[in-house]
Amino acid sequence: MKLYETKTAPNPRRVRMFLAEKGLLDQVECVQVDLQKGENLTAEFAAKNPMKKVPVLELEDGTCIAETMAICRYFELSYPDTPKLLGDSPLEQAEIEQWLRWLDYYFFIPCGMGFQHTSGYFKDRMTPVPEWGELCIADVKKFMAFLNEHLAGKSYICCDRFTAADITAFAVAAFARVVKIRVDDSLPHLFAWYQRINERPSAAV
Amino acid sequence: MKLYETKTAPNPRRVRMFLAEKGLLDQVECVQVDLQKGENLTAEFAAKNPMKKVPVLELEDGTCIAETMAICRYFELSYPDTPKLLGDSPLEQAEIEQWLRWLDYYFFIPCGMGFQHTSGYFKDRMTPVPEWGELCIADVKKFMAFLNEHLAGKSYICCDRFTAADITAFAVAAFARVVKIRVDDSLPHLFAWYQRINERPSAAV
Repeated sequence: MKLYETKTAPNPRRVRMFLAEKGLLDQVECVQVDLQKGENLTAEFAAKNPMKKVPVLELEDGTCIAETMAICRYFELSYPDTPKLLGDSPLEQAEIEQWLRWLDYYFFIPCGMGFQHTSGYFKDRMTPVPEWGELCIADVKKFMAFLNEHLAGKSYICCDRFTAADITAFAVAAFARVVKIRVDDSLPHLFAWYQRINERPSAAV
Repeated sequence: MKLYETKTAPNPRRVRMFLAEKGLLDQVECVQVDLQKGENLTAEFAAKNPMKKVPVLELEDGTCIAETMAICRYFELSYPDTPKLLGDSPLEQAEIEQWLRWLDYYFFIPCGMGFQHTSGYFKDRMTPVPEWGELCIADVKKFMAFLNEHLAGKSYICCDRFTAADITAFAVAAFARVVKIRVDDSLPHLFAWYQRINERPSAAV
């Protein structure tokens, strides 16, 4: 299988961490796609993912799966003997999905939009609205304060163990430096959790 | 179980359609939450969902699950003998998840933001940026053109049968009237699909 990805981007990092935690990194051949050069905008890449985003998983028969969580779910279900990162019981799976959505909507998307709308990084392909970008960055800070309170007395985000929710939160927390936000001891519970996740070997892949 | 929801909002509609397709609507007691009056902003409601959004499913023991797809997944897994709307094989489940994400990011979120940022509907609780709202509405139109092409020769969005992806796309397509977009014969494949889904009894719940 081929994993089309970009080493420095947060979504591919989530997939790599997920695979590393399952011991499945060697199942994929990683193919680098340079986003700033627009290698994801070619007709060849759009045939793999019409949304022109990384990551994309290409199976042996050429079938392509786009979207981080779709790729992660494919591995979760295809390798049932590996650690379950999307939960076990219906309630656990629902709890993790709830958190993945919260992390997406209130942390990751505002962080990405804050970056794109204030930096002009992709201004060749979208119209930045700086006022909107600034509101998004304020939302990121609000969510981090909520997450800090939530993590008081907890080792992991949910289900009392390491899950895909920790992977997403960690990848976004690291990515937040693009909007000049760093996790530090001003949010002590979030900081302790961040350091805990950062010590896992999967954080380095 | 109690389902805190708002009859006119698109996310609760997705949950009701999902339950109706599974024959599980009678498993929940629907409790209406008036969003415009801010009934979702009370401390009592925030204790159920700190994000202060509908829908929320409250189990008999008081455990709450927020987020549409988390609630749907809870029912999908808890009632395995009902029609599978989130797919069967790993590849099917991944394909549906991919589509759910695309529908969310490129259709639903821009539609919601387009509405909020151009109408001022929630201006008591957020700062509208009309320029951003207009860009979002343009993105909705782009995605609908893509969806129209995709549906040429197809009865359903993916997996050759009715799935949660059809529910999401249908609920958002209907919701798009809030940004003055209606599905009509200018996009004939999307229109035919919309009419097909609209004939299902679940579309009326």
